[in-house]
Amino acid sequence: MSKNLTKRSEDYSKWYNELVVKTELAENSGVRGCMVIKPYGYAIWEKMQQILDKMFKETGHQNAYFPLFVPKSYFEAEEKNAEGFAKECAVVTHYRLKNNPEEKGKLMVDPEAKLEEELIIRPTSEAIIWNTYKGWIQSYRDLPILINQWANVVRWEMRTRLFLRTAEFLWQEGHTAHATKEEAIEETEKMLGVYAKFAEEYMAVPVIKGLKTETERFAGADETYCIEALMQDGKALQAGTSHFLGQNFAKAFDVKFANKEGKLDYVWATSWGVSTRLMGALIMSHSDDNGLVLPPQLAPIQVVIIPIYKGKEQLEAVRARIQPLINELQKRNISVKFDDRDTQKPGFKFNEYELKGVPIRLAIGQRDLENNTFEVARRDLLTKETISGENIVEHIENLLVDIQNTIYQKALTYRNTHITEVNSYQEFKEVLETKGGFISAHWDGTPQTEAAIQEETKATIRCIPLDVKNEKGVCIYSGKPSNRRVLFAKAY
Amino acid sequence: MSKNLTKRSEDYSKWYNELVVKTELAENSGVRGCMVIKPYGYAIWEKMQQILDKMFKETGHQNAYFPLFVPKSYFEAEEKNAEGFAKECAVVTHYRLKNNPEEKGKLMVDPEAKLEEELIIRPTSEAIIWNTYKGWIQSYRDLPILINQWANVVRWEMRTRLFLRTAEFLWQEGHTAHATKEEAIEETEKMLGVYAKFAEEYMAVPVIKGLKTETERFAGADETYCIEALMQDGKALQAGTSHFLGQNFAKAFDVKFANKEGKLDYVWATSWGVSTRLMGALIMSHSDDNGLVLPPQLAPIQVVIIPIYKGKEQLEAVRARIQPLINELQKRNISVKFDDRDTQKPGFKFNEYELKGVPIRLAIGQRDLENNTFEVARRDLLTKETISGENIVEHIENLLVDIQNTIYQKALTYRNTHITEVNSYQEFKEVLETKGGFISAHWDGTPQTEAAIQEETKATIRCIPLDVKNEKGVCIYSGKPSNRRVLFAKAY
Repeated sequence: MSKNLTKRSEDYSKWYNELVVKTELAENSGVRGCMVIKPYGYAIWEKMQQILDKMFKETGHQNAYFPLFVPKSYFEAEEKNAEGFAKECAVVTHYRLKNNPEEKGKLMVDPEAKLEEELIIRPTSEAIIWNTYKGWIQSYRDLPILINQWANVVRWEMRTRLFLRTAEFLWQEGHTAHATKEEAIEETEKMLGVYAKFAEEYMAVPVIKGLKTETERFAGADETYCIEALMQDGKALQAGTSHFLGQNFAKAFDVKFANKEGKLDYVWATSWGVSTRLMGALIMSHSDDNGLVLPPQLAPIQVVIIPIYKGKEQLEAVRARIQPLINELQKRNISVKFDDRDTQKPGFKFNEYELKGVPIRLAIGQRDLENNTFEVARRDLLTKETISGENIVEHIENLLVDIQNTIYQKALTYRNTHITEVNSYQEFKEVLETKGGFISAHWDGTPQTEAAIQEETKATIRCIPLDVKNEKGVCIYSGKPSNRRVLFAKAY
Repeated sequence: MSKNLTKRSEDYSKWYNELVVKTELAENSGVRGCMVIKPYGYAIWEKMQQILDKMFKETGHQNAYFPLFVPKSYFEAEEKNAEGFAKECAVVTHYRLKNNPEEKGKLMVDPEAKLEEELIIRPTSEAIIWNTYKGWIQSYRDLPILINQWANVVRWEMRTRLFLRTAEFLWQEGHTAHATKEEAIEETEKMLGVYAKFAEEYMAVPVIKGLKTETERFAGADETYCIEALMQDGKALQAGTSHFLGQNFAKAFDVKFANKEGKLDYVWATSWGVSTRLMGALIMSHSDDNGLVLPPQLAPIQVVIIPIYKGKEQLEAVRARIQPLINELQKRNISVKFDDRDTQKPGFKFNEYELKGVPIRLAIGQRDLENNTFEVARRDLLTKETISGENIVEHIENLLVDIQNTIYQKALTYRNTHITEVNSYQEFKEVLETKGGFISAHWDGTPQTEAAIQEETKATIRCIPLDVKNEKGVCIYSGKPSNRRVLFAKAY
């Protein structure tokens, strides 16, 4: 298999698109802005789902399912949100097609089947869910409600990119209801912690936990928490958000509860979500000019075994030798594939699994059979060594752990060496253009300065890190006083 | 908890609706025809998904995801389907809302954001998927393609009922592509077998495997296989379908492959699906006037433990006693809930779990503590007995198996005693009105007779059973010769 992959240094964006398509993760569909997630890509997403779902359940959440459609009036109830992204969305206006009487074989919208009220395909589900919660909540005894939903959502995007920005995407959205402000904030922060843990321990992607500025905040939230990751091209990527919604949605949909003292109050809310965008973060964090590099925790195939043989007899000898190994690996929950296709040469297969990012490749030929050895190659470092068959299982188990750690450490080192403190706007612009990455700088706290910097440099404030220290300084743009640094970056 | 559940004998339909809502499985949403699947209902659906997904993977299938939207022209390509249910569907015509300049706080469809081509929310995905497969298939080496998708679909239904018929519903749809007709038929039958196994072994619902008549066949299929179940009111319910699509979709979307001889041929196809409708089948097959009866294999809570106590000290004594039991049950993958709420009395809890169909209820009070006993109640038979603590774990394990079998046998007996052979139209109508169930009768094989019988009696041909015997006879309606009996019934 010839790779013909554009190099990252040549054109990072082209490299990414080619990689996603050549590795059969996803492709563009015939529907503008919508992608097809192919089996190899979906298998990674499924692993993400399973791990996250377990983490949600361990923190007390249950899954449920709410309608795809949101009546237009629900967005009107929720004024702030209506000012936000709810506008660029898919609108259902009719409920029937009919045969076009003027052109045989053609269909047309039936004008008699016009909906009284337009339905919006959910861009997010706060509106439909809070309209539902209204019927579920009377007293503090009905709280908290801790619900998550796995669903598809649609936001009409003009410029789309596979996984990173698509009109339809898959995500999970948690929507919780609480009796007190403190409890809701605690939930918001807890779920941010779940996302950070998932990103770092499973995706091997280091993230910075922070708060969004008012400009970047979710419409309808009092506070938006986020995790921000850094891609290899020095651009940041928002990998997950957790919103403290205050009483905004409860007020918009009139959801009150009787507290322990019998007094009526509005319910406190949170919402939090991650999406198939994480696939983009995963790909761009680790992969190289040879193809994908997948962390073992999320790799659909963790170990591939390739036989080197001439003729059926040699193949069967290899098969007999490796079957006990396969059984033993599967017993330890290691996913393994034996590629015995006789239509492709070993070199082709080596290339293919390198491209597809399989963490460990074993090759076994006739000399290995004689010597009881395996050639073991690791994808992340592109190294290989000969390992005795006697301790091959333990070797693989340890190697998977080591690869996971190595990938994470590499990303962490890159990220840490790409957070630059600057103290002037000139320096800011230079770092942004030459090195990229996060830029830690003083900001005067105004949306005006934020907007001016974005206008002039395309950099935005990614977050105010949760662990930021108080530090007196002056805004790099306005020269006004500032009490702490924030993180700027160009972003996906 | 007072149940106030309508009796099945009074009004079966009302009983069903009340049951679904009171047990918090689902409820109607603010969007016409769309339901909210609540956590308890979704937990059952999740169990169904997990089991089916495993069965699909064990038979070689992979998951993928295709767009929610289908361009109108795709349905035109597929003429037969366009004549079918594709017409009653949700149509997206615009991609933006804007503030209504004439009414503050109101939104309106932006007339400038009209789509060039309308998008249909998928009622099923053959069209979008075969349009995609076209790009994936060149040669026999690319075949078979064995893909499944878990998704939401929308069919604009005028009369909806929770789970049984909703505008939006959740389902899985398998779409496979093959090099030969034989292989495609084998796949169609294999997946019907998977569905039948799932229905009988997990849902405890006996089903009849059969073929649909041409009238009832899926538009675009050469043959539709189905599994048909019988509800307690004597009405049939189609629980799953598997379609042999022939080369129809390959021809509609021009999908050809080079076979081993290098000759171009159209690809052979299948599709198969089950939906949240299965929830309706599950509920109506087993439940009674006291509430849900859930088979242990699909019950989100298999065992509930209720403490009988006065004061904190007694509760703690119970807690100490049952904690090792809970650990042991969980170790054996038995889901158990200890209900220590002090806001409700034991009697209320007994009623609640009876209503919710939890298979086994343990109660433990102070005398049980002294005697090392448990009161064990089974939901299906509404019986209870006192069991020694010494062998309680094995007792529960065996009881779960016994309950699963008992529920299935009860449904099977009901079903088997409700298949009636008739030899005249008079007899047919009498059985249909008095006893209901499946009616086995000779039919002349014409759509005209089928339509006339449906018109006069509302009964349809549910299927031609796969195991039907050849038998000479005369059609009950037309008197024309017939070679085999078919199964009629009124149906959901």
